[in-house]
Amino acid sequence: MFDSLTSDKLKELLPKIQTFLEDEVFPFEREALSMPFKEVEKILREFKPKIKEMGAWNPYLPKRWGGQDFTMPEVARIGEVLGQSPLGHFIFNCQAPDAGNIELLMHFGSDEMKEKYLSRMVEGEIRSCFSMTEPHFAGSNPVHMGLTAVRDGDEYVINGHKWFTSSADGAEFAIVMAITNPEAESPYARASQIIVPTNTPGFNFIRNVPVMGHAGEGWHSHAEIKYENVRVPVSNLIGMEGSGFLLAQERLGPGRIHHCMRWIGIAERCFDLMCKRAVSRELSPGKPLGMKQSVQNWIAESRAEINACRLMVMNAAHALQVKGNKGAREEISTIKFYTAEMLHRVINRAIQTHGALGVTDDTPLAFWYREERGASIYDGTNETHKASLAKKILKKYGVKVKNN
Amino acid sequence: MFDSLTSDKLKELLPKIQTFLEDEVFPFEREALSMPFKEVEKILREFKPKIKEMGAWNPYLPKRWGGQDFTMPEVARIGEVLGQSPLGHFIFNCQAPDAGNIELLMHFGSDEMKEKYLSRMVEGEIRSCFSMTEPHFAGSNPVHMGLTAVRDGDEYVINGHKWFTSSADGAEFAIVMAITNPEAESPYARASQIIVPTNTPGFNFIRNVPVMGHAGEGWHSHAEIKYENVRVPVSNLIGMEGSGFLLAQERLGPGRIHHCMRWIGIAERCFDLMCKRAVSRELSPGKPLGMKQSVQNWIAESRAEINACRLMVMNAAHALQVKGNKGAREEISTIKFYTAEMLHRVINRAIQTHGALGVTDDTPLAFWYREERGASIYDGTNETHKASLAKKILKKYGVKVKNN
Amino acid sequence: MFDSLTSDKLKELLPKIQTFLEDEVFPFEREALSMPFKEVEKILREFKPKIKEMGAWNPYLPKRWGGQDFTMPEVARIGEVLGQSPLGHFIFNCQAPDAGNIELLMHFGSDEMKEKYLSRMVEGEIRSCFSMTEPHFAGSNPVHMGLTAVRDGDEYVINGHKWFTSSADGAEFAIVMAITNPEAESPYARASQIIVPTNTPGFNFIRNVPVMGHAGEGWHSHAEIKYENVRVPVSNLIGMEGSGFLLAQERLGPGRIHHCMRWIGIAERCFDLMCKRAVSRELSPGKPLGMKQSVQNWIAESRAEINACRLMVMNAAHALQVKGNKGAREEISTIKFYTAEMLHRVINRAIQTHGALGVTDDTPLAFWYREERGASIYDGTNETHKASLAKKILKKYGVKVKNN
Amino acid sequence: MFDSLTSDKLKELLPKIQTFLEDEVFPFEREALSMPFKEVEKILREFKPKIKEMGAWNPYLPKRWGGQDFTMPEVARIGEVLGQSPLGHFIFNCQAPDAGNIELLMHFGSDEMKEKYLSRMVEGEIRSCFSMTEPHFAGSNPVHMGLTAVRDGDEYVINGHKWFTSSADGAEFAIVMAITNPEAESPYARASQIIVPTNTPGFNFIRNVPVMGHAGEGWHSHAEIKYENVRVPVSNLIGMEGSGFLLAQERLGPGRIHHCMRWIGIAERCFDLMCKRAVSRELSPGKPLGMKQSVQNWIAESRAEINACRLMVMNAAHALQVKGNKGAREEISTIKFYTAEMLHRVINRAIQTHGALGVTDDTPLAFWYREERGASIYDGTNETHKASLAKKILKKYGVKVKNN
Repeated sequence: MFDSLTSDKLKELLPKIQTFLEDEVFPFEREALSMPFKEVEKILREFKPKIKEMGAWNPYLPKRWGGQDFTMPEVARIGEVLGQSPLGHFIFNCQAPDAGNIELLMHFGSDEMKEKYLSRMVEGEIRSCFSMTEPHFAGSNPVHMGLTAVRDGDEYVINGHKWFTSSADGAEFAIVMAITNPEAESPYARASQIIVPTNTPGFNFIRNVPVMGHAGEGWHSHAEIKYENVRVPVSNLIGMEGSGFLLAQERLGPGRIHHCMRWIGIAERCFDLMCKRAVSRELSPGKPLGMKQSVQNWIAESRAEINACRLMVMNAAHALQVKGNKGAREEISTIKFYTAEMLHRVINRAIQTHGALGVTDDTPLAFWYREERGASIYDGTNETHKASLAKKILKKYGVKVKNN
Repeated sequence: MFDSLTSDKLKELLPKIQTFLEDEVFPFEREALSMPFKEVEKILREFKPKIKEMGAWNPYLPKRWGGQDFTMPEVARIGEVLGQSPLGHFIFNCQAPDAGNIELLMHFGSDEMKEKYLSRMVEGEIRSCFSMTEPHFAGSNPVHMGLTAVRDGDEYVINGHKWFTSSADGAEFAIVMAITNPEAESPYARASQIIVPTNTPGFNFIRNVPVMGHAGEGWHSHAEIKYENVRVPVSNLIGMEGSGFLLAQERLGPGRIHHCMRWIGIAERCFDLMCKRAVSRELSPGKPLGMKQSVQNWIAESRAEINACRLMVMNAAHALQVKGNKGAREEISTIKFYTAEMLHRVINRAIQTHGALGVTDDTPLAFWYREERGASIYDGTNETHKASLAKKILKKYGVKVKNN
Repeated sequence: MFDSLTSDKLKELLPKIQTFLEDEVFPFEREALSMPFKEVEKILREFKPKIKEMGAWNPYLPKRWGGQDFTMPEVARIGEVLGQSPLGHFIFNCQAPDAGNIELLMHFGSDEMKEKYLSRMVEGEIRSCFSMTEPHFAGSNPVHMGLTAVRDGDEYVINGHKWFTSSADGAEFAIVMAITNPEAESPYARASQIIVPTNTPGFNFIRNVPVMGHAGEGWHSHAEIKYENVRVPVSNLIGMEGSGFLLAQERLGPGRIHHCMRWIGIAERCFDLMCKRAVSRELSPGKPLGMKQSVQNWIAESRAEINACRLMVMNAAHALQVKGNKGAREEISTIKFYTAEMLHRVINRAIQTHGALGVTDDTPLAFWYREERGASIYDGTNETHKASLAKKILKKYGVKVKNN
Repeated sequence: MFDSLTSDKLKELLPKIQTFLEDEVFPFEREALSMPFKEVEKILREFKPKIKEMGAWNPYLPKRWGGQDFTMPEVARIGEVLGQSPLGHFIFNCQAPDAGNIELLMHFGSDEMKEKYLSRMVEGEIRSCFSMTEPHFAGSNPVHMGLTAVRDGDEYVINGHKWFTSSADGAEFAIVMAITNPEAESPYARASQIIVPTNTPGFNFIRNVPVMGHAGEGWHSHAEIKYENVRVPVSNLIGMEGSGFLLAQERLGPGRIHHCMRWIGIAERCFDLMCKRAVSRELSPGKPLGMKQSVQNWIAESRAEINACRLMVMNAAHALQVKGNKGAREEISTIKFYTAEMLHRVINRAIQTHGALGVTDDTPLAFWYREERGASIYDGTNETHKASLAKKILKKYGVKVKNN
């Protein structure tokens, strides 16, 4: 059913990426995931010429920015393939949060920003981060925020406290979500997005927040940051004052497609490991584990659920391409929670099929079990997306359900 | 994403069917479901001229047999729309098991059979039944069967015991699955399908088996039948001797698409009733039930699950069209259990949203709750389909898992 | 662990009841459930001398009222045993809603009420009903009600609309929940419970509401009733004016224990049928269905869940005995939703294990599947009980969560 | 309902332990879990005098071995309280696998073993490990094992490969499960348990297997060990030759009670954190997170499920006390999978309630999410226990279901 959504160019490219991953990336994962990530980053960047030659560098971007001019559904399919390895997206220079920041600058950045940052990001020379979440405010209510940027002449003076600023460690700059217009009538018109170079005085890097047993490092980390009288020129404002939420929305649509397809890639890899285990592990000589009906149930249910999610996400990608961000909101909300819940189930079944081996780091299963628990939390919890989707549906039935 | 699968003709037809159902069928349901079904059948047949005029009579059939030449994916979409009412398929003359029997005779029937039966079936003048399931043999093992047809000159002599011969009450003939070649090496080459007119001596109609509190009647029933020295001419054999399973397989592919799309239609209707209830029922003045997050969760999850199933089934219909019955087996197994499980969840949520009203017969919810419990059982239990799918998958990994 | 909660008398009685059910009641069920229930009632009452002789008549009542002076936990255990048959409670004269009405009159009825009604109820000579639920008001908000009883001299004049007045068909009288004090400050002090003989003019019996395909009859039915200028003497008031909710609460604690233990009895019977099927049905010669791991999973999970529920309900019964209705509220809320959800799962697994047979009326499984869908709805939906329990818990953490 | 199972002595002790944990252990957890565990062990041992004074040292042991003479149900209750902290069991000297090894030596060890090892273990001076699981054999089939101990004069010569030898790092000795009698008719009579000091030549410690991102250290680790021509005197045999499985069984009953009660302790702590979060986190000013019905559902369901598991495990502990290991097998199998599944659900809900904070190491939730994923795997997977329980049940129905 995807035929109509896939160019010949992509059909040729996908198997090449798959082969590359299987031959050169999967075998390196176990070592990579136990090394300091800043070292891993360097090693991964050495693949750059190869990826460029393959015609797959910056696969999410237009040619103008060193990319490949793929459509949204095509981008989705690439995202799935790369998702099969925790290293995939980074190698192809389309890792979060840089992919989103690149898109933002591409569409809304000033010429100066493009020259200074964007041109180096698309070459994989620098990394960036996105500083939105605050420890003292609920993520499910995005208009509820404490960090402020107060204008003082030609500068913004920024004060506040953020965390889960992913990949801040080693980043060149942060895009900071800040309240600039507290007096605006609409709560959705109070914030702005502002670029803050990480070496600006007052940008106080507190720590990489330990997540699931690791502080992380480099690209693979989540920083806590205190902004204390940080001063940046007003020209660091992205777009207009008060457009912070609008820009964030703009970013979320494609971002969620990317996440969901990456999760599907993870799920496919787990599925593959589960099947391999089912045929190789013997309960007794000649009796493979796959004889067990529980294992058969897991395999069948996982196959069905992964397929369903792929169709859903491709459908949403198509909707996004055709109807734009706003028109595709229901589809986007739907895939976010639906795919995240599928991911948890498939990972868990794959681990259970592996028995004791499943909880070790000898396979990537335990890594995803830990690192992707957040899939049901980041970019909006499942519960938030469900409520939001239901309210949109009930509105069509003539009733506007209030937030409670 | 369905655009490429849908002709303009269908795009025009679907809203007409929808309007017809909403205006003339939904309001009659409650009364119809409390009447003897043989009377209901007569009333429903009065719609025939209207349906013909609409260009929707026999929507699953080619023009040659009074149908509309729709493709498999188009047929699927019609099936969903009709599924919204328990009366839908009958009105349009594409109810099970007749739809399957028609297809069988169309492809494998002799000229005599076509003239004698098929031509009257496509006009909705007679009904038929399919006599396969036996009370003493497990349905999940189709080669395990007791009824025999022994050749005696130009006749078969049939003896055995069947039940769940759906719609036998009032049918003109039964297609009977019988062991004709017990000595065949392959257990899959032992049975044949034979036409038995219901007025043949020895065709002993024992009872309509009471299902979920009702014996049922007419089209809407499941008979227990004892075949005692039933004699029919050998020309009543469909296809070749020993081809019974092959023909049954042939029938099951499209049959499962039809069931699944009908279930999606049911689910959509339940979803609609759930949303209407969520906005109309008030917990206290001005506070609609839809404010409750549990209800919101049910709405969002149901929306996601129905959408996913539709994409899955349409994808399977497309595969069936392109790859044929055998090529699409995995897709068919997958949708059977996946859609059935979705259906149960959506019906249950809709009932729960209605509270006490949900268990009454004042809405069609309780009807589907009862009648469609079988969706996870008939045409192969969910467990059978899961095991079968898993084994096909594991085979690709190089291991043939034995039946245990 | 129940030893300390069970008297020797009960230990002797339980196996007698079990034997009686297995020998005389189970074999009659299939016939009984297809007969008009008013006839069944008469047949069942013929067991009365036998039950009296067994020392098990009115097992929930004190000796003073023809009962057996069992403790709450003992009553619970009897309730489980009786629950194994849809006919059990009626035969022993402890069926809902009479059991609750008896208890109410016993504690709060006037001498006149006791003489006129109670003395005949405990002999099984008359039946009664409880008229609370209204079609136009949400059951989850019990202070929201439309039926009024207005004092006019020595009479109440009652007007309003009720449904799900279970067992009204053939009942001698209804206990009606009515708004008598609309001006009371607390919404919980506005209603009263009033006895209305069913032959009072203006007591308009509209219909037995068809539930799950059947209107029902007699004890086994749910009436819709319109009260139009019904006049009864003020002496028909039970307790004090405005005490309606208080009395209802009083009734609900033990009532929920009764329901839950009955459900456990149902679950045990389903479990037994499931196991019998697992060992008797063969997939192929010598291979019982119970070889399938899915079936093993269902058996193991059902065993665990039923055991857990029994411990929970016995614990709640003990709490009710020791701490009273108010002190045991958390325990009571907990068992209501927890046991109802278990019941649905166990019934569904037992049906699935039976395949096609499971949806027929040849076993009692389909009866319970239909009739007990309401377990998650009546006496408070699962969602209402969960919210109520959570709020009680959070209150201990210092926060009173508002109703939304 | 536990009153009859709990002595006054225990009733006095439990609140003391609770207070001690809350005041001195909980606040130290975050630091401890980020330190090398060998250092943590030393710090925790400093509490020994305090615990002894409290009368809670070795709470699982009889007075003869420095314990407290508690019954099995009492031991269970203590296990729950200690389980609230990842450090609890170690501080009180009843951590796995030492607790099990102590019990084994106490019952089956020679006088020499008792003097040399047991006397120092009960003082917390040395640690031990249990070496059973092998990487190349399925844990669900315990008679399938590769490591052998061949008798050579007065010595056993041991060769083989083990992993998940928990706490081997820093242990004084291992109890090794070895095939000593390969020719024994019953596969259950082929193995023996043998003590191997960890400094014996040929005891090759390969690595601490990284589990969920950490290699672990000291008590908190899982070693891979190669036994290469390891020689130990035959007097190191525990019990008789060929009694290995019997002894393992002996150990598993109480061991599973301990695990389950520890999990209940974990679940209670998670529940407490979830409720605290629900009242302290605000969606907007004055609107606590606990207003959300999804959160209320999680709280109510968790409360019900934890209570149910506690009753189940206490009931099993009581059965173990009264009926012994063999008599209580069904109860033990039941609680193992039932409690493990509850644990995963409660941890997940608590994390989800915490949002981003839930995946950080700022609470112990993420630790348990990782470390206790294994609860459904170690000591028999959930699937193994379910199959085993179902087979025991079906045997009572007269059919012995074969292993498939």
